[in-house]
Amino acid sequence: MEDKINLATKLATFSEYFSPRTVAQLNNLDVMVVKAKGEFVWHKHDETDDFFLVLKGSITIQMRDGNVTLGPGEVFVVPKGVEHCPVAEEEAHILLIEPTNTPNTGNPETAATRRVV
Amino acid sequence: MEDKINLATKLATFSEYFSPRTVAQLNNLDVMVVKAKGEFVWHKHDETDDFFLVLKGSITIQMRDGNVTLGPGEVFVVPKGVEHCPVAEEEAHILLIEPTNTPNTGNPETAATRRVV
Repeated sequence: MEDKINLATKLATFSEYFSPRTVAQLNNLDVMVVKAKGEFVWHKHDETDDFFLVLKGSITIQMRDGNVTLGPGEVFVVPKGVEHCPVAEEEAHILLIEPTNTPNTGNPETAATRRVV
Repeated sequence: MEDKINLATKLATFSEYFSPRTVAQLNNLDVMVVKAKGEFVWHKHDETDDFFLVLKGSITIQMRDGNVTLGPGEVFVVPKGVEHCPVAEEEAHILLIEPTNTPNTGNPETAATRRVV
């Protein structure tokens, strides 16, 4: 039987920003936690929507036609093909869901290596 | 542009137990919130894993080979084909993710109608 996953416990295992850790899989998707602080890079995913749930802190998802700011318990799905750039003034913790092996920068050459914790 | 989704605000719009509400879509999946109290029914989904994240309270996911009890910030993915029966002594709030039109009881004839809020 699989174990349950405590998201805070998983988040305590690393400190790097914008370096998602896969904590579970759901069909062909990775369920990931990530710590964010500062500005990420503008990018898009042509093949998949991009799910964000803020667990702690606050992030702003900048998009070309406007921004969305999320606090704890708030969800936003960036539709496939939409350019976006997350930014967090203070450290924020986020649950992400994307198909396994989706490059986090939208580009396999610059993407973080997939890491499972 | 899509709006952000505040999960607590969505949960405040209904009171029925075991009646999931779709709050967003991610590719071909429904992101749902549900209130649980009491015991659901034993069922399985042959075609999909079943994602649970507890937002408030506590639920136990009973399975034939053991139980998993989840509190806030804890995730469990029931693998496809595994019989399970969630139970909550007190009201619990849960985030669920499943492919759109997955019957919540595993059986289209007894499943809750899909509702989007």
